[in-house]
Amino acid sequence: MKKRVCVIGAGPSGLAQLRAFQSAAEQGADVPEVVCFEKQDDWGGLWNYTWRTGVDEHGNQCHGSMYRYLWSNGPKEGLEFADYTFEEHFGKPIASYPPRSVLFDYIKGRVEKAGVRGQIRFNTIVRDVRTLDGGGFEVTARDEAADSEVREAFDHVVVATGHFSVPNVPEYPGFETFNGRILHAHDFRAAREFAGQDVLILGTSYSAEDIGSQCWKYGAKSITSCWRTAPMPYEWPDNWTVVPALEGVEGRTAHFKDGTSKEVDAIVLCTGYLHHFAFLP
Amino acid sequence: MKKRVCVIGAGPSGLAQLRAFQSAAEQGADVPEVVCFEKQDDWGGLWNYTWRTGVDEHGNQCHGSMYRYLWSNGPKEGLEFADYTFEEHFGKPIASYPPRSVLFDYIKGRVEKAGVRGQIRFNTIVRDVRTLDGGGFEVTARDEAADSEVREAFDHVVVATGHFSVPNVPEYPGFETFNGRILHAHDFRAAREFAGQDVLILGTSYSAEDIGSQCWKYGAKSITSCWRTAPMPYEWPDNWTVVPALEGVEGRTAHFKDGTSKEVDAIVLCTGYLHHFAFLP
Repeated sequence: MKKRVCVIGAGPSGLAQLRAFQSAAEQGADVPEVVCFEKQDDWGGLWNYTWRTGVDEHGNQCHGSMYRYLWSNGPKEGLEFADYTFEEHFGKPIASYPPRSVLFDYIKGRVEKAGVRGQIRFNTIVRDVRTLDGGGFEVTARDEAADSEVREAFDHVVVATGHFSVPNVPEYPGFETFNGRILHAHDFRAAREFAGQDVLILGTSYSAEDIGSQCWKYGAKSITSCWRTAPMPYEWPDNWTVVPALEGVEGRTAHFKDGTSKEVDAIVLCTGYLHHFAFLP
Repeated sequence: MKKRVCVIGAGPSGLAQLRAFQSAAEQGADVPEVVCFEKQDDWGGLWNYTWRTGVDEHGNQCHGSMYRYLWSNGPKEGLEFADYTFEEHFGKPIASYPPRSVLFDYIKGRVEKAGVRGQIRFNTIVRDVRTLDGGGFEVTARDEAADSEVREAFDHVVVATGHFSVPNVPEYPGFETFNGRILHAHDFRAAREFAGQDVLILGTSYSAEDIGSQCWKYGAKSITSCWRTAPMPYEWPDNWTVVPALEGVEGRTAHFKDGTSKEVDAIVLCTGYLHHFAFLP
């Protein structure tokens, strides 16, 4: 009997699995039956931008951490698929740092060419994966569009749900009574929401750098960014202040380890993500 | 063998189950073993206020829809437990419309007196409930604090997780490129965040009335509330405008069915909740 492989998630990683099996089949290999479950209504994973935060339209955790004006923070030459070039996709050379929608278009182009979309069950969230006594796995998945559930056996399960979807949200003293807005980078969608505001950024990695910069660019009144281990090694504009770690907040006032403080309207927690797989034991 | 009952959720409904079994036992009844799973770190369900939105500290969906300055919208006399009066709890008469923290204190008082806390496994989320071939149910629950999982058999399962935790979030044309903030009432925590802002409220039920009123009271620049079936039957202050249903948004401009439009900073979707039970087939 043909082996069965379950791929959870049709983002770049899951799609790479589908493409690899399709490519092997094309070269004459005897490949297993592959079923890919995707909880969103389209492929692309994080690249499938949504304005939603918190939960999706079916009431499940919102996968998207993507924001509207994200541009690649690495040159596209470092992201290129070996078997599908940017030039093949766009028919001409393009700039090194493409925006979100251009990268998404490229990612889709490769799998459209591979013809693997039929293997994906969209709007279907994997609820549970458990080992079977005789070997292999039992996968329970709910088709939210059809409002039905399937339970199927697989020989192998590839978890390709990523680890940039479930935010790590630290608590600081005073958060419970802070008089402004607290959000994690996961829920950041567009910097225009913060125009005219005093914004505090926690963290020093990619999200902190880019979300802080976007808020600044789109008209935030000031940016304050704080660090625990080391500050980001950049020169910032005049209305961008770098301070050591946050100690806590009172009202709208944020207090820092060096004794300074700042009134802020919003706190953006660029504090990373959890490795969280709700369907696994 | 003693029967086993699983209660999912230690909010007012789940606690009422525990109290009922304890009360029956007190009167000499032979009661089953009761195990209550609660995903939060304390009892109270929605009344256990959290500043968090989206996900909780373990990466699971945030249960809380409670906001900081919620007051009871019905007289406490209509909410009183038959076996535990407000006067018994507080030792004196109190006003008819208590704030959140007072009601929570009262709810806790009854179950503290009943001594049922030991039956609750906190920080433990039920991941899956399925029927067993021989009858009864198998419940899979993850203890997030201990990072471990249990799978236990029960004769009965009481689902007491409520239905005001998973927001129903409609999409309107232009939401994807709206230049302000969009949130559901589920994620509303304090009206002070909206001081100085033009706020659009969708919906005409309790959340719409109360969140709109709080935003107004705490200094929103204007409130616009829109309805589909019928407007709320109240007289509103001068800077509160009632309009028919939203058609869509462009930039920051909301367009309504009567042809009027309004620039808004935030859209609060008071559009109700889904009956969503992630652990059920």
